Amino acid sequence: MPELTAELQNVADLITRFIEHDFFPAGICPSVLSEAVVAYPSRGGKRIRPALLLWTCAMFGGKIREAVPAAAAVEIYHNWTLVHDDIIDRDEIRRGAPAQHIMLRDYAKKNFPGISQANQEAFGTSFAILTGDIQQGWAIHALCSMLDLGVAPDLVLRLVRAMQSDLNRALISGEALDVEFEYRNPADVSEEDVLRMIDGKTGALVNFSVQTGAAIAHGRYEPHSDLYATLHDFSRDFARAFQLQDDLLGIYGEPKKFGKPIGSDFQEAKPTLLYLEAMKRLDEDGRARLNSMLRLPFYGEAEINTLRSLLSDCGAADAVRAKNDELVRSAVSILRTCPDNEWRDLLVEFSTKIMSRTV
Amino acid sequence: MPELTAELQNVADLITRFIEHDFFPAGICPSVLSEAVVAYPSRGGKRIRPALLLWTCAMFGGKIREAVPAAAAVEIYHNWTLVHDDIIDRDEIRRGAPAQHIMLRDYAKKNFPGISQANQEAFGTSFAILTGDIQQGWAIHALCSMLDLGVAPDLVLRLVRAMQSDLNRALISGEALDVEFEYRNPADVSEEDVLRMIDGKTGALVNFSVQTGAAIAHGRYEPHSDLYATLHDFSRDFARAFQLQDDLLGIYGEPKKFGKPIGSDFQEAKPTLLYLEAMKRLDEDGRARLNSMLRLPFYGEAEINTLRSLLSDCGAADAVRAKNDELVRSAVSILRTCPDNEWRDLLVEFSTKIMSRTV
Repeated sequence: MPELTAELQNVADLITRFIEHDFFPAGICPSVLSEAVVAYPSRGGKRIRPALLLWTCAMFGGKIREAVPAAAAVEIYHNWTLVHDDIIDRDEIRRGAPAQHIMLRDYAKKNFPGISQANQEAFGTSFAILTGDIQQGWAIHALCSMLDLGVAPDLVLRLVRAMQSDLNRALISGEALDVEFEYRNPADVSEEDVLRMIDGKTGALVNFSVQTGAAIAHGRYEPHSDLYATLHDFSRDFARAFQLQDDLLGIYGEPKKFGKPIGSDFQEAKPTLLYLEAMKRLDEDGRARLNSMLRLPFYGEAEINTLRSLLSDCGAADAVRAKNDELVRSAVSILRTCPDNEWRDLLVEFSTKIMSRTV
Repeated sequence: MPELTAELQNVADLITRFIEHDFFPAGICPSVLSEAVVAYPSRGGKRIRPALLLWTCAMFGGKIREAVPAAAAVEIYHNWTLVHDDIIDRDEIRRGAPAQHIMLRDYAKKNFPGISQANQEAFGTSFAILTGDIQQGWAIHALCSMLDLGVAPDLVLRLVRAMQSDLNRALISGEALDVEFEYRNPADVSEEDVLRMIDGKTGALVNFSVQTGAAIAHGRYEPHSDLYATLHDFSRDFARAFQLQDDLLGIYGEPKKFGKPIGSDFQEAKPTLLYLEAMKRLDEDGRARLNSMLRLPFYGEAEINTLRSLLSDCGAADAVRAKNDELVRSAVSILRTCPDNEWRDLLVEFSTKIMSRTV
């Protein structure tokens, strides 16, 4: 039976090999742009989407070898959205290293002596925009390279259309909603809006990954089939559970293990489902207290403890935990309707671990 | 025989109709993003690339009707690069109306009362990045919709690969070189670097347009054929001639007719071919005088007259005019090797007019 850690390492190796050997980045100039295009995809990360794609393909009897370019494509696709997200969110760190626009800003600092700090930053942002733009092309290029492994042109074309039409619109719409939230009063955002944002920003690419895995296994893309509706439901539950867990870890997680500073969702006044749940449960005074915890300049032990009490005492944290449990159970029960084999068991183990992660 | 003005209007109408009727933008949320995605493509412009694509298709005996989605695709592709370019170049005007990020900034100003000016600008930039990202997807979606008109899947797939692999890399590399020039001393940029930038930023999409026109007419994509090499040479000459004319108009043009302020290339310290030609011809004193005209805060009549004298007296302006003439002749003579019909004559008339334009 496939063992999770070893199989994940195998996925990571396949993706890294694809990225390092693909000829696409070599045709890019100047060389700083060519290197930037490879930077995030090479940096690792959990490779969640490629794993879901490859193992879904295997579960439905497909060949992992044929699906590797598609797995690389979803990883590259994910990475271009991160490059642009990091510019938009002004994030300076990604996977423990400088964000793309920061790396490029530092390149300008070193290579164009005497330019102002504002111009260094403008160079970093401009080149990072172009990096993401070119990576979007690379994702399609990678998907198309399945042709060279004998996958039928008609199937490849249908997947290209799904990626550049359905996935592109859904994912970027989700990202846009997330950006828009920042400019709205978080208390005015509805739970429905937030779910729509999650379904787009996270769910759409998970859905594309598992449906593509199935399509390669079956040799055809069947967007209107019952199976694809089932895979879509799995993806929605997976993405929502992941996000609820992220909300919880953002308040109750261990600062050293969690990637972001504890309290950062409140600092950025994000309308998380955890926040909205508490707003539903608190009285007027409690809501005012919770809202006074938004956009503070600093979240130290005292502030975090206040937030934890506010969110726990009204039952919001437990409600969100229960909702996460329910989504995990639902996602797993959907997987259990799929062919009973060792790849399915691996997907169950992996999905559960990701949806219930503690870091 | 097709008449240029009427045929150009016909192209404009076909593209506008495609853009207004395509279902792609409707699936985007929030609505401000959906509207932004359509804004530049609907705004008009010269529709140079669709005209080249459709008439090349017709010249080689193809059906214009089948090629309309591809013509819309190159126009949408061009527009997403403009949306991102305008952010990068901090341009505030596009085709006589506010640039995309400015329109979106103004949307934020109106719809999120009380937010700071910095946040209005951040919203404008963020949403304009996402607008271009989604338009890149729309271009591929449009290209794929040729399938629905009966174009063979294998051909569509080859064109998708050409667009997202060769065109994407070449065009964005050209844009990146152009951005990088701003950070370099213009006197250190070589003519070869500038030609490479033009070939990528402008030539690549012209090349994709005419090759795609030929491919649809012939029912196959033949990147290694003599014909495609010929079309590539035409595109290179066309793009370079266009740019040389742009350099000249940027100094000698009429302020009211030319889209940009006269002198703006010098204000931005762009290493144009006109500037580099003058640097080759001037003595040390002249070079110092020319360089002292870079990055001035204001280009009034006196400054423009000084620039005109400096560039004319050394023979640089005439040399650039001669080079433009040579490229126009070369591009036209290449077209004359194509099938002798009324569409070829239209292409000759149109190309000559664009390459030698006075506004």
